[in-house]
Amino acid sequence: MRQKQIGPYWVRKMNVKRPFGLAAAFLALAVAPAGAEEGMWTFDKFPSVKVKADLGWAPDQAWLDHVRLSSARIEGGCSSAIVSAEGLVQTNHHCVVGCVQNLSAPGNDLVVTGYLARGRAEERPCPGMALQVLTDITDITAEIAKATAGATGAALTKARNAAESRLQKACMKNREGRSCEVVSLYEGGRYNLYGYKRYEDIRLVFAPELGTAFFGGDPDNFNFPRYCLDVGYVRLYENGKPASTPEHFKLRAAPLAAEEPVFVSGNPGGTSRQLTTAELAFQRDYVLPWRLNMHAELRGRLLAFAALGAEEQRIASDTLFSQENSFKARIGMRLALVDPAVFGVKQAEEADLIKRIGADAKLKAEVGDAFGEIARATSAFSAFNQFYYYAEQAPGYGSELMNFARTLVRGAAERAKPDGQRLPGYTDATIGKTEADLLAATPVEKPLETLLISFWLSKTREYLTADDPFVRKLLGKESPEGLAARLVVGTKLGDRAERARLWKGGAKAIADSRDPLIVFVRNWDEDARAIRKRYEEEVDGPIVLAHQRLAKARFALYGDALSPDATFTLRLSYGRVRGWTEPSGRVVEPFTYFSGLSARATGAPPFKLAPSWEKRITSLEPGTIFDVSTTNDIIGGNSGSPLIDREGRVAGAIFDGNIHSLGGNYIYDGRLNRTVSVASTAILAALSEVYGASDLVAELKQ
Amino acid sequence: MRQKQIGPYWVRKMNVKRPFGLAAAFLALAVAPAGAEEGMWTFDKFPSVKVKADLGWAPDQAWLDHVRLSSARIEGGCSSAIVSAEGLVQTNHHCVVGCVQNLSAPGNDLVVTGYLARGRAEERPCPGMALQVLTDITDITAEIAKATAGATGAALTKARNAAESRLQKACMKNREGRSCEVVSLYEGGRYNLYGYKRYEDIRLVFAPELGTAFFGGDPDNFNFPRYCLDVGYVRLYENGKPASTPEHFKLRAAPLAAEEPVFVSGNPGGTSRQLTTAELAFQRDYVLPWRLNMHAELRGRLLAFAALGAEEQRIASDTLFSQENSFKARIGMRLALVDPAVFGVKQAEEADLIKRIGADAKLKAEVGDAFGEIARATSAFSAFNQFYYYAEQAPGYGSELMNFARTLVRGAAERAKPDGQRLPGYTDATIGKTEADLLAATPVEKPLETLLISFWLSKTREYLTADDPFVRKLLGKESPEGLAARLVVGTKLGDRAERARLWKGGAKAIADSRDPLIVFVRNWDEDARAIRKRYEEEVDGPIVLAHQRLAKARFALYGDALSPDATFTLRLSYGRVRGWTEPSGRVVEPFTYFSGLSARATGAPPFKLAPSWEKRITSLEPGTIFDVSTTNDIIGGNSGSPLIDREGRVAGAIFDGNIHSLGGNYIYDGRLNRTVSVASTAILAALSEVYGASDLVAELKQ
Repeated sequence: MRQKQIGPYWVRKMNVKRPFGLAAAFLALAVAPAGAEEGMWTFDKFPSVKVKADLGWAPDQAWLDHVRLSSARIEGGCSSAIVSAEGLVQTNHHCVVGCVQNLSAPGNDLVVTGYLARGRAEERPCPGMALQVLTDITDITAEIAKATAGATGAALTKARNAAESRLQKACMKNREGRSCEVVSLYEGGRYNLYGYKRYEDIRLVFAPELGTAFFGGDPDNFNFPRYCLDVGYVRLYENGKPASTPEHFKLRAAPLAAEEPVFVSGNPGGTSRQLTTAELAFQRDYVLPWRLNMHAELRGRLLAFAALGAEEQRIASDTLFSQENSFKARIGMRLALVDPAVFGVKQAEEADLIKRIGADAKLKAEVGDAFGEIARATSAFSAFNQFYYYAEQAPGYGSELMNFARTLVRGAAERAKPDGQRLPGYTDATIGKTEADLLAATPVEKPLETLLISFWLSKTREYLTADDPFVRKLLGKESPEGLAARLVVGTKLGDRAERARLWKGGAKAIADSRDPLIVFVRNWDEDARAIRKRYEEEVDGPIVLAHQRLAKARFALYGDALSPDATFTLRLSYGRVRGWTEPSGRVVEPFTYFSGLSARATGAPPFKLAPSWEKRITSLEPGTIFDVSTTNDIIGGNSGSPLIDREGRVAGAIFDGNIHSLGGNYIYDGRLNRTVSVASTAILAALSEVYGASDLVAELKQ
Repeated sequence: MRQKQIGPYWVRKMNVKRPFGLAAAFLALAVAPAGAEEGMWTFDKFPSVKVKADLGWAPDQAWLDHVRLSSARIEGGCSSAIVSAEGLVQTNHHCVVGCVQNLSAPGNDLVVTGYLARGRAEERPCPGMALQVLTDITDITAEIAKATAGATGAALTKARNAAESRLQKACMKNREGRSCEVVSLYEGGRYNLYGYKRYEDIRLVFAPELGTAFFGGDPDNFNFPRYCLDVGYVRLYENGKPASTPEHFKLRAAPLAAEEPVFVSGNPGGTSRQLTTAELAFQRDYVLPWRLNMHAELRGRLLAFAALGAEEQRIASDTLFSQENSFKARIGMRLALVDPAVFGVKQAEEADLIKRIGADAKLKAEVGDAFGEIARATSAFSAFNQFYYYAEQAPGYGSELMNFARTLVRGAAERAKPDGQRLPGYTDATIGKTEADLLAATPVEKPLETLLISFWLSKTREYLTADDPFVRKLLGKESPEGLAARLVVGTKLGDRAERARLWKGGAKAIADSRDPLIVFVRNWDEDARAIRKRYEEEVDGPIVLAHQRLAKARFALYGDALSPDATFTLRLSYGRVRGWTEPSGRVVEPFTYFSGLSARATGAPPFKLAPSWEKRITSLEPGTIFDVSTTNDIIGGNSGSPLIDREGRVAGAIFDGNIHSLGGNYIYDGRLNRTVSVASTAILAALSEVYGASDLVAELKQ
């Protein structure tokens, strides 16, 4: 099991979405194509007046409190809904598949067969899984401002960190099961303290077969119409017993109606809606097309490798899924940016902001030439972004062995430095996790490792050219294929004990090592560090500072009228049940039905029904709504969020967006951006008719 | 041997460059970044005044005549130079490799080992190869105008075809060894009659090893610095004897100097410099990125397949080369179009043209809304261009079996129609070649066929989605992999006799056939025909007509001040020996030297020296110029063209352009666009020192 690879796929998607390390405010204007339903709103600043105007209905405070307290964040990157008084939680199959895989054993692959606990005794613990319910939000903007008044530069950072730490500790003091975090919204325009009730004894109740949850596989991923039962159930336990959860959602058994208002309560992971048009153009014209070609070629290599046999298929499947998912995600992102209507909105937003800043002398002075600084840093980056990527961001392109070697080489050097001077991942606060990852029992599949390292070397040479000094240093007189094979065959880093020995041995052990992979990484790590430093100084530093000034200006000008960029904290988005019309003119209806599943099933993967469904499909009511498309503004991290109706009932579990929703990283396009959920009607029918899960259905209907 | 795949690679490149079937005039303005050296000039309208101003020197008529009569077009897609009085011709290795491959036998692969004829008796015939020397150019614009006066629509086409045919026949009458063709320049703005002396007994004299000619392989393809001896020699024979060629080039033994003026005489295949900004944006934002992703994934699949063993390597090599070459070509084309400086020039050109047309009432009336018509047709196409591609343009993605099946199914239907109503390739004038291709002894490699058909099916499903009716018709209940395997295993179309039987059997044989591939193609051929018809009516028809009006307006406004788009006829381009500066700031010098080859050779393919070079490399003069970069404006089809100095001597053989030269399809960018040649200094040194070809050297030095 490759622990770092079995997380929910929307989480992985989140990782690919941030070109630079930016998180800032978001500017929305009432310009087409951004729709009325734009916004991932915090629960303490929900724009009820606007929503009332848009939907003809808006939730009151009691509704908001109830929904917030019935929603739960899954640590690591998902969302969920508490759906019974006894701690039953509904989320996506792809948010619990890691646990399902952990519970599997040779000859008993629960990912393939699915799992249903018959009674509490069969509910099986998911180690490492934890959920949090947001209990309270406190505005601490004033405290932070007070604590940092007059400070600048490093002193400012230090003062802010100290204040945050103090407030956080006070929030948690003497309260078991509580966790607190400081949330910075609008790039520091507002600071909130979020208090959570935390559950860490989580047990698996139900997961369907992968073939049912991910029916249609990659061809249907991010597409709609869709026929996935991407749902799973776990239960919160406290003191060895099911947790008491008086605040919980009811499931709605009645079918949804087109145009009906719906809400999504969940934790969108991150958006980049504040990027300037210079940054967007760079993404659109250079970064995305290049990375897409990388994904496409590696996908081709992996598909051919996986076709060699069952074992190769097994070895390659996670990496292949990740490449295909990232490929489609970036396809959607690029398509949004090349749409003149979308880019036009971004240009209009920027022009409006510049105009408003210009009209305010104080703001104008504070913002200075932020747009120019960002454009120049982006332009500077274009000269070395591929070098930065191949040398520092992606050596080995996911190879475990390469990651081990880099952690060992860097760890030895970093640990010798004072805490404040170390690279991220090697500070006192973070080195524990780095060490744990290094020494975990991560399986190493040598053929896949060779494939990935060889791919990385070959693309590094292709994009930097064979004349590049770094490429020459990497390859010497070897070919990418030959070098990758030599490194993987020769290294002993697949052995945990050897990794532990080198980690403990520190700088001397690394200097003395003759392991070919250590020798290889040692040879160019200084080049990688140098380009990282250049990136931080010439690109990331100037851009982050300029964006902070812009974000402050935006907040001063627009305030709460705009929702902040996503921060993987609880948000509420509103919308309607609605399909869309493709630019080609094709009309996509908002619902799919069980009848469509029968029509779509071919018997050939990924359109092959699981045996349980093959047996029961003909006896299911064909008119039952299966999956549903809505206009809610969501993004990766929202996986497992409840789709909620006006009565506060759960009408579905959101599990995907359409291809256009990927552009949501940059902008919400109300014409096309759609959220995809599995409807409660399908969930209830499947549980009772296909899986015979009568106890579960009874609990859901209580 | 895959006959259709062994052509010179610049020819294949030509095939990918025309998004629609357009060929029209070209508009150039003195706006950066288009450089002074822009233009592929016809020999009868060479702009000597401009060239004199730019270079400080310009050729006189005698120079032009001599160069024209010493240049030879290689039918099928290359250029060459006559370099001795006894018919010796210099071109690229990749322009003769098809002949070399044909002359090879099991255990004697001349592509790998190279070939040198010791004496005339060892000069071996290259069947099918033919060369043409342009002897005269006649302006027939007035005759065509007269013959077509007053005619419109189909009558116009008929009258023009008749006039062309009459003039062509008259041109050839009673003159053996002469061929004539009508050349339409400026999209019909000017008509010329080109008379050629044609040679069809061509014999191989010398070809180096593939590893020498294509040293650096794909990583170095379209890159510079470069170290390729991409040169080959053939000899023209007449009446069984070496042809007498008093008009020929001398080779220059002295090294080239930086900034020295140089000329290229050759046959650029085609450019699309007249595309409107609407068409360019469509290429930039949609077509090129999508096709790049296709190339990248198939490349990945082929690389993994080729890595399985020597036989798989052999089977896949041509297709892999073609994918890698097309991939890089489109990379360069896309990079040109996303460069704001380049696109800005295209916008400025268009604005200038619109302004000038607007200032002339007659022109304005004639042109009408040509830009709007093109933009609307392009926009209409965006809704179905992928369907058109998968269903009509690329079924099987190069699969021989699929091509056979489509030819058989279509041929049966088309031959039943009157000549004028048949599809291209099935008319009386063209069906002979179609039949010959169908019945040729083309080898069919089943694993590769399965790979290609499976890839096509899988991408068709991916881009059109599993919901598309055409996809459903293609796949039925099968997976792409399963269907491809079933078709390839079951079909008998790999057997020439079976193809001949079905071809001769006509409509009845096709209707009765139970061959799975025939049944498969029969099932959806009507859909493919329908989308072709829609393309012709809604896209190609309106666009071609609008472009003709624009081309006429351009010619009226700019006349001969602009060179016409390339037409695979003889052109002269001028420039200087010069490197360039990458946008990243990296400076690329114009020369490489033998010393650089030693440094670059690693011992691992594609940087492995051939044995002949390994033996001799240390005794070569390290300061000898090897390859050279110049500013000449060339494109695919120019392969093998002589690089000529002021004295009319051959200073090299052009064989490639840098990555930026690919943008030359749309625009000549003088900052970056460079031609790459192998220098005569390297050729002479290699022939005498490495290959011991003393007779050849003596002949070249005469």
